[in-house]
Amino acid sequence: MEYMKEEDFSVWYHKVLEEAGIVDLRYPVKGMVIYRKWGLYIIRQMQRFLEKMLEDAGHEPCQFPVLISEEVLGKETEHIAGFEEQVFWVTHAGKNPLERRLALRPTSETPMYESFALWIRSHTDLPLKVHQSVAVYRYETKHTRPLIRGREFLWNEGHAAHATEEGAAGNVEDIKRIYGSLISELLCLPYVIDKRPDWDKFPGAEATYAFDTLMPDGKTLQIATAHNLGQNFSKVFGIQYETADGKKEYAWQSSYGPSFGRLLAALISIHGDEKGLVLPPELAPIQAVVIPILFKKTEQENKEILDYVKAVEEKLISVGIRVTSDCGNQHPGEKYYHWEMLGVPLRIEVGPRDLKAGKVTVARRDTRSKSEMPFDELVNLAKLFDEISGSMRKKAEEKFKSGLYKAGNLNEVNSLLGKGIVSTGWCEGKECAGKIEETASILSIGGSQAACCVCGKQGREIRAAKTY
Amino acid sequence: MEYMKEEDFSVWYHKVLEEAGIVDLRYPVKGMVIYRKWGLYIIRQMQRFLEKMLEDAGHEPCQFPVLISEEVLGKETEHIAGFEEQVFWVTHAGKNPLERRLALRPTSETPMYESFALWIRSHTDLPLKVHQSVAVYRYETKHTRPLIRGREFLWNEGHAAHATEEGAAGNVEDIKRIYGSLISELLCLPYVIDKRPDWDKFPGAEATYAFDTLMPDGKTLQIATAHNLGQNFSKVFGIQYETADGKKEYAWQSSYGPSFGRLLAALISIHGDEKGLVLPPELAPIQAVVIPILFKKTEQENKEILDYVKAVEEKLISVGIRVTSDCGNQHPGEKYYHWEMLGVPLRIEVGPRDLKAGKVTVARRDTRSKSEMPFDELVNLAKLFDEISGSMRKKAEEKFKSGLYKAGNLNEVNSLLGKGIVSTGWCEGKECAGKIEETASILSIGGSQAACCVCGKQGREIRAAKTY
Repeated sequence: MEYMKEEDFSVWYHKVLEEAGIVDLRYPVKGMVIYRKWGLYIIRQMQRFLEKMLEDAGHEPCQFPVLISEEVLGKETEHIAGFEEQVFWVTHAGKNPLERRLALRPTSETPMYESFALWIRSHTDLPLKVHQSVAVYRYETKHTRPLIRGREFLWNEGHAAHATEEGAAGNVEDIKRIYGSLISELLCLPYVIDKRPDWDKFPGAEATYAFDTLMPDGKTLQIATAHNLGQNFSKVFGIQYETADGKKEYAWQSSYGPSFGRLLAALISIHGDEKGLVLPPELAPIQAVVIPILFKKTEQENKEILDYVKAVEEKLISVGIRVTSDCGNQHPGEKYYHWEMLGVPLRIEVGPRDLKAGKVTVARRDTRSKSEMPFDELVNLAKLFDEISGSMRKKAEEKFKSGLYKAGNLNEVNSLLGKGIVSTGWCEGKECAGKIEETASILSIGGSQAACCVCGKQGREIRAAKTY
Repeated sequence: MEYMKEEDFSVWYHKVLEEAGIVDLRYPVKGMVIYRKWGLYIIRQMQRFLEKMLEDAGHEPCQFPVLISEEVLGKETEHIAGFEEQVFWVTHAGKNPLERRLALRPTSETPMYESFALWIRSHTDLPLKVHQSVAVYRYETKHTRPLIRGREFLWNEGHAAHATEEGAAGNVEDIKRIYGSLISELLCLPYVIDKRPDWDKFPGAEATYAFDTLMPDGKTLQIATAHNLGQNFSKVFGIQYETADGKKEYAWQSSYGPSFGRLLAALISIHGDEKGLVLPPELAPIQAVVIPILFKKTEQENKEILDYVKAVEEKLISVGIRVTSDCGNQHPGEKYYHWEMLGVPLRIEVGPRDLKAGKVTVARRDTRSKSEMPFDELVNLAKLFDEISGSMRKKAEEKFKSGLYKAGNLNEVNSLLGKGIVSTGWCEGKECAGKIEETASILSIGGSQAACCVCGKQGREIRAAKTY
């Protein structure tokens, strides 16, 4: 989407969520939505891509229960302090109170690390890397927004223990690469990795790296995070291993997760246009739809066209393309509207002239350009998909870059908020941070020097923005 | 497994769950287990097979929130009466009580049908068929058993609304066929469909059909159910559609679900042997493992064998077989133990003699027979997989049939309980049912006539067994 005002964007976003069958917002529990067909198909594609990359890199799947005992959740004090306002508590079963109340997982560090302490004995058990794709629960008190901030959200969370500090740091780098592939290769979305300031770290972490992208209303959206946990949790949970020479050491840990809901929100918002979704071909659950153009001159001609549609569909299936045909009774215009709303990358129109000339007419969803293609070239459609992905990625990156600003003083910073990400300076003083954060969030504190946008003293470069 | 005493079976079952990496039972919340790698890989295979069949048959995926408002859950009186003892209640968020408590879904009829009433307007919206693969929560007070009876379990649940009674009945038949494929084709397991007696129906259903299989200790295990719901729920939730001639009618509904945990428990128990799991090839996450037999005579010879292992692996990958190789430093015997425990259908041994003769040695997990195969025939391994599946299915069916008994009186019934499924008669009197159910469960009431095993009066044929 081109830059949009917050209200206009919100209206458009809700319309697409409904018309494309992403989620139904009418569920009678606040902050929770019903995922519908098209939303789930897209999430399924993301999830399979991510899980394959994680498993190829040595992560094992696991699935922990949704309920966590209060004792386990409370073991790491910073961690529980960060989440205690947000935890849903199960206190009763049937008509009776439980002996001890149970938490719906807000994240799974604590129950997993309780198990890590049982699973890890020796240096030969390391590294241990696991992941799970589940829903997590946080009682958000801020304004909830579908897919962006909800009280139930779908994600994948990964957790690792390494023998050394370098091992854990290397794993965080691996994860940056894996999430980078998911976001940039599969979803064709731009992002920047921000090392969060200390006051905005994950509770219990040494360092938090966040993947931020930029929404059409100029606010950033955090779509994934990776945390270096040091030995904080391993010391609390007793995750020790025996080294090759018989000493006991605490493991070094990391945890990380992308939000499928937020990735989907970014995908919809950044690539979408006034006709609805625009999906990158590798991700799209359906990559091409074949639509017959029937003039109903004669039954015979119609039959020939429908046979031709079938032949086109079969040819595409034979080269592994996810294709469907839409031979219903609606007017082609209605069909176009529907498949454009769903963001299917290619529409292949097949009419009498196409049949006669042994060709098809191909309409691209991203550029809306039409071209003709001989039937025999359909087998090379994957090349066109690469071109589409490349072009979508490039367009989104250019948009993203045009939303990167520099500002010298707080007035300038404030005038740019809501337009994109603003680089400026900060003296590292608490008071000045407070002034900046009256209107913006500090996304990251960089290494280079820059004058503080509040007091003018020499300080460090920061990135600031309005955030979701 | 051959017939086993209950205690012996239980010891074996727990050993396999642990050693094959199916679940970890040490999770500190009663009735909840941690799913581990191998268990999840198998469930993933089942889930993808089932979801594909459901979606090919017109079911759409959806995912509803885990939390249900008390008002919605309580709308259908029989239904809530059936579940109220089993519901986990969320009463607090953060430090504050919720205005209205929320239930963890024990099953999803009520929240889904609240939405069905919004989604269905006209006969053209029907049939509506949706499914979701999620965890559900029931506070079981009976003895919990891993994968078999837990307080959190993984399943797929399907829900449908049809315009006519026949439509709903036809859908239940479709589901019987789909679940039949899952159980018999993919898992190679025997089952019988039992129409449950009225007192054992799903709460709110007109009729419940259960898929029962027989475990090695002679008890039946219900692995899936399908319910004809009639118009009970549609009347309560106001699921009405407008007919072609403008009248308002209530929809006819059905709901159904297999338990992935119980399917996995049956798979492990029925096909397994003293060396661990035995997996049917179509289901197995890894279908073949290639193991080098190295004599360490010369580095050169070892290298040649390892190259040959690689060539075997690549050949199998090229024909779509899920294969891995195990070239670690352990003794081949240790490797055999490991891959046999996991139930991988074929072990392919590659030693100096195999290399020289351009062949491999193939060991079947199910029969433990070994044979030699020329390298070039590896591309036809799929044929051997069919043979293995067929043979596993046949063996399990024969075992199942040998557990089907007939009994004339209650003494006979009781003497056969714990050995299998007993056909006998019942007069349809409450008192006699009570006597039978002192020791057994009545699985189904059939159509044929038979003398009551308690009072001798002419009645109907029933099937009875000890059940999990």
